[in-house]
Amino acid sequence: MGTEVLISEVGPRDGLQSISAVMPLDAKKAWIAAEAAAGVREIEVGSFVPAKLLPQLADTAEVVAFARTIPGLTVAVLVPNLRGAEAAIAAGAHKITLPLSVSETHSLANLRRTHAQVLDEARAIAALVAAQPAGQRPHFEGSLSTAFGCTLEGAIPEDSIARLATALMEAGCDEVGLSDTTGYADPAAVRRLIRRVHATVGETALTGIHLHNTRGLGLANVLAALECGLTTIDSSLGGLGGCPFAPGASGNIVTEDLAFMLQAMGLKTGIDLPALLEVRGILREALPDEALYGFVPDAGLPLGFVPESTPQLQRHV
Amino acid sequence: MGTEVLISEVGPRDGLQSISAVMPLDAKKAWIAAEAAAGVREIEVGSFVPAKLLPQLADTAEVVAFARTIPGLTVAVLVPNLRGAEAAIAAGAHKITLPLSVSETHSLANLRRTHAQVLDEARAIAALVAAQPAGQRPHFEGSLSTAFGCTLEGAIPEDSIARLATALMEAGCDEVGLSDTTGYADPAAVRRLIRRVHATVGETALTGIHLHNTRGLGLANVLAALECGLTTIDSSLGGLGGCPFAPGASGNIVTEDLAFMLQAMGLKTGIDLPALLEVRGILREALPDEALYGFVPDAGLPLGFVPESTPQLQRHV
Repeated sequence: MGTEVLISEVGPRDGLQSISAVMPLDAKKAWIAAEAAAGVREIEVGSFVPAKLLPQLADTAEVVAFARTIPGLTVAVLVPNLRGAEAAIAAGAHKITLPLSVSETHSLANLRRTHAQVLDEARAIAALVAAQPAGQRPHFEGSLSTAFGCTLEGAIPEDSIARLATALMEAGCDEVGLSDTTGYADPAAVRRLIRRVHATVGETALTGIHLHNTRGLGLANVLAALECGLTTIDSSLGGLGGCPFAPGASGNIVTEDLAFMLQAMGLKTGIDLPALLEVRGILREALPDEALYGFVPDAGLPLGFVPESTPQLQRHV
Repeated sequence: MGTEVLISEVGPRDGLQSISAVMPLDAKKAWIAAEAAAGVREIEVGSFVPAKLLPQLADTAEVVAFARTIPGLTVAVLVPNLRGAEAAIAAGAHKITLPLSVSETHSLANLRRTHAQVLDEARAIAALVAAQPAGQRPHFEGSLSTAFGCTLEGAIPEDSIARLATALMEAGCDEVGLSDTTGYADPAAVRRLIRRVHATVGETALTGIHLHNTRGLGLANVLAALECGLTTIDSSLGGLGGCPFAPGASGNIVTEDLAFMLQAMGLKTGIDLPALLEVRGILREALPDEALYGFVPDAGLPLGFVPESTPQLQRHV
């Protein structure tokens, strides 16, 4: 286990896409700016999907443009296809993630595409990325979603997942990620699958994981992932969000609780925890009808706990 | 990590002592019987404290007498002192636990005793246990409470905790336990302290841990404890309970979520998970005003999840 962990905030994408309320652009900007000011160094700020599918994220291009003005922040977006990637690159995203659901049933329901079709998109996006001028090429990740099981298909064989990881890398992704879309993961499965994918595509080709807390195992799964050498963990402020196409799959890991666990363990996140806790106020004000989750916000920090105070780690400058 | 884990249900003691409602004796019996029928093999059924302090547990002797009639169930109780241990032995408890708060400030607030006074009680209890006829001697555990920090004192030096573990074993305890009374533990601290106590008193003298989920790290801490070889994990059905003398320290680990995590990892608990989930109905009916916690009860079991179905592991028969 290393000593530095990158928390990648996905609330402005995964959180907002799962609720019916539409957060005003100004509130999104305030949220992103406040989290970055608290030391969060990577934020998935939106998704380039048709506005009629996800009106909550219709302003993603404007959000990216704003987020790019924040020094040191890696601005990530989700894209479902080449058209989304074109928009992401035009907007100037630093990182683009294409989900490939390892459950083909879920892939058809979620992206309306077979595996072969998603891999075609991946190849096209990789070519587009490669065609950008040096220094302006975004990092391109293929995310293996429903990797720990699917609400429609159940468990997906690890052989299939390893094959799809290889296919994504061969298609030209810089990296693959694992995503527990459905909240089915457990620590043993996390270890097993990370080791399998590492053995298949190499350790540098898998450094991040997206976990949900649907069954309360989110942070235990994080621990297992850290033990296997992963260094980037997705989470959502206030636990906002989930996958609208996987029923009952709500509940991202809570950024506040994750940051607390990592700092309590002596790991470096670069995050000012008290400042991070303050950012919840922006969500509460902008989304007064949404439930916010998290244990640390209710319980407070332990007596004598010394949080990291100075954001020291920078990825982009 | 072994393949068998003993879940020790503490709800009838730790849960009920922290709420103001008094559960009727018949409901306690129904709860204990139903959990045992679901395969739970150890239950802390009460505490022998003066009824005026904890009227919720005033019927502990009757609860013990009932629980003893359940084949295969280890009947555990908490005792604050020799007088409590006398009552526990008279009632026929299989296991008695004496808490020693490693924070002396908390010890004075909680048990109204210094460390030296608690160790005197431990010696007296050990002598009483030793004087019982062979085959009727209860297992005697000294539980190091506030082991991961105290809401009054903050962190407690590991040297002090190791010294107190040694003192409890020298006083005649069969075993010591670690208790995160305040919900301050993190996985790194769990590993560090278990290794320290193992190095000090031996691995067989520390096999169990009592963790709270106050800051959401409960199951991550369980994972760390399992990795260090512990085999007994306390938890409370519905997450009922906490420590009434440690403000904000509510929230035992939820038995349902714990059993799910362990079974998902392929570990053996002997518990019939669907049957365990049914037991919540007894709590809901008997304590209609109490919040019940747990993620698995809301989210349900993953599609294709095969729970352990047959209770196979027995400690007492």
